Amino acid sequence: MYRNRTCGELRLANEGEVVILAGWVQKTRKMGGMTFVDIRDRYGITQLVFNQETNADLCEKANKLGREFVIQATGTVKERSSKNMNIPTGEIEIIVSDLNVLNSSVTPPFTIEDDTDGGDDLRMKYRYLDLRRSSVRANLELRHKMTIAVRQYLDQQNFLEVETPVLIKSTPEGARDFVVPSRMNAGQFYALPQSPQTFKQLLMVSGFDRYFQIVKCFRDEDLRADRQPEFTQIDCEMSFVEQEDILSLFEGMAKYLFKTIRGIEYKESFARITWHDAMKYYGSDKPDLRFDMKFVELMDIMQGKGFSVFDNAAYVGGICAEGAASYTRKQLDALTDFVKRPQVGAKGMVYARVEADGTVKSSVDKFYTQETLQEMKAAFNAKPGDLILILSGDDVMKTRKQLCELRLEMGNQLGLRDKNNFVCLWVVDFPLFEWDEETKRFYAMHHPFTSPKPEDIPLLDTNPGEVRANAYDMVINGVEVGGGSIRIHDSALQQKMFKLLGFTDEKAQEQFGFLMNAFKYGAPPHGGLAYGLDRWVSLFAGLDSIRDCIAFPKNNSGRDVMIDAPAPIDIEQLEELNLVVDIKE
Amino acid sequence: MYRNRTCGELRLANEGEVVILAGWVQKTRKMGGMTFVDIRDRYGITQLVFNQETNADLCEKANKLGREFVIQATGTVKERSSKNMNIPTGEIEIIVSDLNVLNSSVTPPFTIEDDTDGGDDLRMKYRYLDLRRSSVRANLELRHKMTIAVRQYLDQQNFLEVETPVLIKSTPEGARDFVVPSRMNAGQFYALPQSPQTFKQLLMVSGFDRYFQIVKCFRDEDLRADRQPEFTQIDCEMSFVEQEDILSLFEGMAKYLFKTIRGIEYKESFARITWHDAMKYYGSDKPDLRFDMKFVELMDIMQGKGFSVFDNAAYVGGICAEGAASYTRKQLDALTDFVKRPQVGAKGMVYARVEADGTVKSSVDKFYTQETLQEMKAAFNAKPGDLILILSGDDVMKTRKQLCELRLEMGNQLGLRDKNNFVCLWVVDFPLFEWDEETKRFYAMHHPFTSPKPEDIPLLDTNPGEVRANAYDMVINGVEVGGGSIRIHDSALQQKMFKLLGFTDEKAQEQFGFLMNAFKYGAPPHGGLAYGLDRWVSLFAGLDSIRDCIAFPKNNSGRDVMIDAPAPIDIEQLEELNLVVDIKE
Repeated sequence: MYRNRTCGELRLANEGEVVILAGWVQKTRKMGGMTFVDIRDRYGITQLVFNQETNADLCEKANKLGREFVIQATGTVKERSSKNMNIPTGEIEIIVSDLNVLNSSVTPPFTIEDDTDGGDDLRMKYRYLDLRRSSVRANLELRHKMTIAVRQYLDQQNFLEVETPVLIKSTPEGARDFVVPSRMNAGQFYALPQSPQTFKQLLMVSGFDRYFQIVKCFRDEDLRADRQPEFTQIDCEMSFVEQEDILSLFEGMAKYLFKTIRGIEYKESFARITWHDAMKYYGSDKPDLRFDMKFVELMDIMQGKGFSVFDNAAYVGGICAEGAASYTRKQLDALTDFVKRPQVGAKGMVYARVEADGTVKSSVDKFYTQETLQEMKAAFNAKPGDLILILSGDDVMKTRKQLCELRLEMGNQLGLRDKNNFVCLWVVDFPLFEWDEETKRFYAMHHPFTSPKPEDIPLLDTNPGEVRANAYDMVINGVEVGGGSIRIHDSALQQKMFKLLGFTDEKAQEQFGFLMNAFKYGAPPHGGLAYGLDRWVSLFAGLDSIRDCIAFPKNNSGRDVMIDAPAPIDIEQLEELNLVVDIKE
Repeated sequence: MYRNRTCGELRLANEGEVVILAGWVQKTRKMGGMTFVDIRDRYGITQLVFNQETNADLCEKANKLGREFVIQATGTVKERSSKNMNIPTGEIEIIVSDLNVLNSSVTPPFTIEDDTDGGDDLRMKYRYLDLRRSSVRANLELRHKMTIAVRQYLDQQNFLEVETPVLIKSTPEGARDFVVPSRMNAGQFYALPQSPQTFKQLLMVSGFDRYFQIVKCFRDEDLRADRQPEFTQIDCEMSFVEQEDILSLFEGMAKYLFKTIRGIEYKESFARITWHDAMKYYGSDKPDLRFDMKFVELMDIMQGKGFSVFDNAAYVGGICAEGAASYTRKQLDALTDFVKRPQVGAKGMVYARVEADGTVKSSVDKFYTQETLQEMKAAFNAKPGDLILILSGDDVMKTRKQLCELRLEMGNQLGLRDKNNFVCLWVVDFPLFEWDEETKRFYAMHHPFTSPKPEDIPLLDTNPGEVRANAYDMVINGVEVGGGSIRIHDSALQQKMFKLLGFTDEKAQEQFGFLMNAFKYGAPPHGGLAYGLDRWVSLFAGLDSIRDCIAFPKNNSGRDVMIDAPAPIDIEQLEELNLVVDIKE
């Protein structure tokens, strides 16, 4: 070994010991005939000392060290005269007796500090240097710890980790697949899994009972901040269970993670809200419940009073921001600008302040009597000092989404979204289908294997849009951290689902024949859930994007700019795969 | 939950308890007014009892159950009158009070028993039924336990598990890559990793120090029994270490696995043998050392005595099978047939028996005096009762390989290859390069990042074929279970390696520029190892093929016959990817 101690472990108690350290030069400085070198490794930073007087040659060598040189230093641990209590090794230094340069370094393109001067692009290109920063490394250390805790919990609960294949079959449902041409089977393709869904269900058919896997999944989608073409799921499935069993077991897992990773005893049961209520009260299927600020619908109160904007709207609703009546005109204009941004898309915003005397003063006072405004105030249960913000629009769902954005923005502005306060909930009773106007057909909201609620099965024939699914999402602080469902385990019902989703019998057979066939050989009732590992880690690390908890992420065009992938391949490779590239303009 | 106990846990101590079980019908039988149903789940089998007299309806229901029906049974635990001590639950049975059929089953295509009547093809097609057999499930349970033990060991040793990307860049070196066309980057392709080699080295450059990952890797090769297009590696890398440190740490891991998984205290240090000696004495870089039967070269003794087959050979060598002089003519003929099979490829075999009186009787007695034969006997250190088997050939390496096959066959025949006896060794000092006659160039024997032994560096310019690498394999019972090397961490040396491997500067830059560039920013000395998880599990489970420890393996044409993948994809998908399929006859 090139070292016998790390740069993070030496303390006063080690005084007098002769140690060998190896690591990177963080910085060097000369002061009064001495040279000080901070040496850094994964575990910390230690100060090395070279004395011009007692060992001029060695000191000369130290003076030549540049930033990020890799060195090995032998020396004696000594108490420092001027201690640095900000770092764990700050009470000692090493009086170096031997120095060995293991590798030199050209000047890095940005500083290796928590607050670096490197921009995003530069840091992605030199990701191997970015990863030297302790803040970035800490995210990956957290990720490691979390997967250990996940496996501990699931192993204790008798789950078996089973690897499912990566080279599978493309299915047209859901997001776009990445495909892999097969050389041995000319003209045929594997697909990379969007999730191990069918395989985990087959494992249930096999009697595996409790399966999990921490597994890479792939989606060829246009990317956003919290999406990557490859991402990692904690994928779980259980047999002989009902929805309640799954919610309870995975709520237990969430609490286990809170406790072991963040030291938080999350005692209360997670709140539950139906999808319908989540949309109605928060305009989102993943509401952030760190603060309430529930939507209040105002159609009854505010329509028909002559304000045509409201009168012609399909939806009028608002939120009440406690204590925000002091918002200035400038702040309110900024909020109006916020809701009008293309990403939000509202046409305008109405506001109303509750004054100290209880009267309501609004931006639409000329259309409404104080009596109506008081009615409105009562609907919000608003108090003096509160600010009411109202949006309206033609499309109920769209307007709710806009109001949701406004609610979240107000949460930010009022400091109600503390990253260290975690509020968890289950969203339940998702619709089984969603209707697509463009293609005029139903799509599975979750996926085609999700079971309808037994009591809603008759609606499959009469009103599929109203059928509720045994499906659930776990939401923490407005982030969907996981979701799942009770699955169909009946061959005939599964066939019916495919039919409702517009599959011909032939297509269903071709794509999912193996699954429907498997169901004929004694499929147990089963269901499961998948957690998004990247999201969990981001949440626990307080990150804004999952990118920062991934060692080598891709950019928004799906490129790894460090290795410069994807890239063209040799013509011979293409020929072996029986492929021709044909780029249309 | 559909159950409150499993089918494997009830004992006499539970007598009188009312329990609910759920599982599959293993078998039913009627006897004297009673119906007995064996119910099976992942945990075991329990006997259910239905009494025609006391509950005719229920018994009737039970009589209608078919094999592999999924049922839920409520009943009372009772001591059996005729106990079955072969199974853990054999002392009790359940007097059923309620029976619920959760799902029916058509007749499975083979029996769900340890010794099934299903052939390989049928079992692969219905893998979900094959996985119901407890022998198959046991392999996957073992796999789960092994990964837990691996992670425990490595976590204790301060290794961090870091996920590296699956969508990377194709490199022409080594085996064939699977590629993934990029939709967002027209005409460009990702590749699936053959190993996370460059990424783990970059993590070392990043200061991660001790990395590991249990990770899927991919090779588009023609398949053999122990190869799958996707396989799983325990991939490890360390910084600031020398070869000895790595061998010691991973020998420790192997011993930890032996102890925790198989209960074997493997006390001795693993034997070490140079690649050169392994080839010379066992004709293989992965010798099975459960038995010795070392090669003895006989060129000095046996050539120039008029036996033209030997005289014209580049290599004459043999093995001595202790106590096998009693082999009959028929057995010897069978051995000759064995070495002449195309898979082995020898032209013939010479044998010699050491008689009780010490004289040697050989199949080539007419060419050799007893004196020469005695010299030969001495070279083998053979005793009365031993059998000497000799092969010869034009090509030293090829003949050694043939002799290796013969040695292994003799090991089998003499019962020297007990699956429960594990003999581990390190093969060290691999050559850095191997020469390919066809393309007239050197290839990296390990991979292009392997460092030469420092003392052999001068040979890079004069005699590259003689350069030894800091590379090592771990071999258990003739199976290479892992291998690795100390890597090059010097940018200039890495560049030189690429040159020796026939890369132009431009090509090297295009393919591995990011790595050589990374080395300029302070790369630490580092090295690592990758274990083949599938091989470890097969070895511990006593399996002949890795296929049996993989939940959903592919066949020899790379097909998953259960889901029928790969498969053609839609023309729209191809168009989005800017690809045309062009199959040449």
